[in-house]
Amino acid sequence: MSDVFRIGLLGRGTVGGAFAELLPARAAQIEAITGMRPVITGVLRRSEGDFEQVLEDSDLIVEVIGGIEPARDYVLRAMQAGKHVVTANKQLLSQHGEELWACAREHGVQLRFEAAVAGVVPVIRVLGESLAAADVERVHGIVNGTTNYILSEMARTGCSYEDALADAQRLGYAEADPTEDVNGKDAAAKMAIIARLAFDTPVHLDQVTYEGIEHITADDMEYARDLGLGLKLLGTAERVDGGLSVRVHPAFLYGSHPLASVGGPFNAVTIESESITEITLSGPGAGGPQTASAVLGDVISAMIPPASTPEATQALEIVQDVESAFYLHMEVADRPGVLAQVAQILGLQGASVKSVVQKGLGEKARLVMVVHPLLESKFYAAVDLIAGLDFMRSRPRAIRVIEEEFT
Amino acid sequence: MSDVFRIGLLGRGTVGGAFAELLPARAAQIEAITGMRPVITGVLRRSEGDFEQVLEDSDLIVEVIGGIEPARDYVLRAMQAGKHVVTANKQLLSQHGEELWACAREHGVQLRFEAAVAGVVPVIRVLGESLAAADVERVHGIVNGTTNYILSEMARTGCSYEDALADAQRLGYAEADPTEDVNGKDAAAKMAIIARLAFDTPVHLDQVTYEGIEHITADDMEYARDLGLGLKLLGTAERVDGGLSVRVHPAFLYGSHPLASVGGPFNAVTIESESITEITLSGPGAGGPQTASAVLGDVISAMIPPASTPEATQALEIVQDVESAFYLHMEVADRPGVLAQVAQILGLQGASVKSVVQKGLGEKARLVMVVHPLLESKFYAAVDLIAGLDFMRSRPRAIRVIEEEFT
Repeated sequence: MSDVFRIGLLGRGTVGGAFAELLPARAAQIEAITGMRPVITGVLRRSEGDFEQVLEDSDLIVEVIGGIEPARDYVLRAMQAGKHVVTANKQLLSQHGEELWACAREHGVQLRFEAAVAGVVPVIRVLGESLAAADVERVHGIVNGTTNYILSEMARTGCSYEDALADAQRLGYAEADPTEDVNGKDAAAKMAIIARLAFDTPVHLDQVTYEGIEHITADDMEYARDLGLGLKLLGTAERVDGGLSVRVHPAFLYGSHPLASVGGPFNAVTIESESITEITLSGPGAGGPQTASAVLGDVISAMIPPASTPEATQALEIVQDVESAFYLHMEVADRPGVLAQVAQILGLQGASVKSVVQKGLGEKARLVMVVHPLLESKFYAAVDLIAGLDFMRSRPRAIRVIEEEFT
Repeated sequence: MSDVFRIGLLGRGTVGGAFAELLPARAAQIEAITGMRPVITGVLRRSEGDFEQVLEDSDLIVEVIGGIEPARDYVLRAMQAGKHVVTANKQLLSQHGEELWACAREHGVQLRFEAAVAGVVPVIRVLGESLAAADVERVHGIVNGTTNYILSEMARTGCSYEDALADAQRLGYAEADPTEDVNGKDAAAKMAIIARLAFDTPVHLDQVTYEGIEHITADDMEYARDLGLGLKLLGTAERVDGGLSVRVHPAFLYGSHPLASVGGPFNAVTIESESITEITLSGPGAGGPQTASAVLGDVISAMIPPASTPEATQALEIVQDVESAFYLHMEVADRPGVLAQVAQILGLQGASVKSVVQKGLGEKARLVMVVHPLLESKFYAAVDLIAGLDFMRSRPRAIRVIEEEFT
């Protein structure tokens, strides 16, 4: 009879429930691998259980409550008591990560968090272990399944944002309150954690600029198709002039881009460095059983001797203004000189036009452009000037374009 | 001043040379992570160095000689002397893996081999750690970059196999002697190692059935395009009726299949299980710097406390005959009754025809079919019968088709 490895479970919602089902089903296999039999020895939920008791009876705490408090307090107390912690809590790590990692190092315990970032897609393990010294240049990808499902549906059916969101809620891909998914905050928290590991630099959620997909229209999708582009909510963390830019925003990709084919509620992350060229990891980004499976992988690793997150040894400056290519959509009165005036303003800000589509007639004409990369601050200054022209029927809409083409 | 971690390097070809360049460039970062400074303290190559001396001066041996002997002898002696080993040697592991893993367990050292399977794509780590207890159902993918480059070029340009191979050799994607790449043996060795980890069952290279791409013609590629298919050299390891099938063969995929878009010298592996749905990992499958980077990831992991490959706890039967869908290409004399006779033979073996394309006239007519999945033994029995019909102009050509469609 081998030893028992005792697990205290904090939270028993979708992920906690799936974990409580998955663990006994895999216990024999885990015992064969680790020599210990994992057992859930305590559960804490809103209506039941006592944290001190759960803590005392466990060797490891699984935190799937979510939110900042009391999760932060519980995780800190667990580590101070010498227990390992596995968490799926992206908001906690993106806002209090340095405090938590320091606590783990101080008390010689492990704090593992694969499930916090991209569901079952092993981004954290690959960044932290396979690529521990890879000198990463850029990490970018799709880290929110809800928005990817909505954008995929809009592209596939031509439906509105509202209809696609309602559809996602019906299928369980979006929560009743989808705010943090659709406004980009969920993806921003994940990118903060990814950037911390990839660039060994502390990154707080507040340092991540983000935009959501709430303002994307069926009309944008249609023009994009004409230009050979597909739309994704893209997270990016990359070195820029010796600093680090971490951001989330909708972006058009050419159809040949590897991320363009990632559809539905899937996540995909590409890691680039000179020595590895690039690695792409993809799979379901959420879902109870999938996230529970990521938690379980971390639990098994914690049962085997390990290493905790090393201290941050770099401190790259966090950059806010970067270069992007843009799609610019304008509703204009169809008069002589419209294109010339718009082009002149863009030109004065250093924006060079790559392609133009003009559609419609008279008072309902539209002018859609793609401009080559320029500093975002310069581009938005041009947009403000263009918005003030007397022939504009509404505020111009701008969406970033990823220009790389792959063959 | 922190401790030195001493590395003995066996072999200084493409990968060994790249590793010797990469290590000093990353030494400071590795020291920050592990608290030890890695240094190459000895090199053995054909013309230089003494194995016993290299061994004595090292904490870990990197084996990038390749081949079975003397690599096997060196790796065993290193582990018997209590040294960790990192190897990129797929032939060695697929033929002597159980002996080597047992030796590692017996002497309490690590034997790591990420670089043996898919270059920098972290299949081994993800299978062995993230998915240690994931109850894998199937692993399949593209694990040979040379053949994927050749097939991509044939599809893109319409050129012959011979021309694409010459092109690959010119660009360094194929070796001067490409035999083991193009006949499928290289991919078979990788699939044996992947299957061992994914299914916890000993798998020897001899138990992997494999076919290469030497007989693929420009003509096959053209008909395939008409049917909406693309061609890949596919490795598969999957549960079949309580047993395990491990195989490598060319296969057609529908354009919407995630592996269909993996082009050029890239590798991609999809791991499927009920709890995770699926994860796909992709990146460059070979290349000196990329493989050296995979070796380095393993070296860093060995510097941090770890676990060795657990004993195989399952022993699934290795299955040789499985169900597949097929593309069947026949050069026929254009007479009445040809289609009927072919269809009748297929029907008697239980093969049901999904689609038919007929091209050409008179004595140069061609009949191309896709048939739904059936046991391969039954299908090949039908092909033997069809080959004997008097209107056949040459032996029919059969290529497997992956029928799953993705939306």
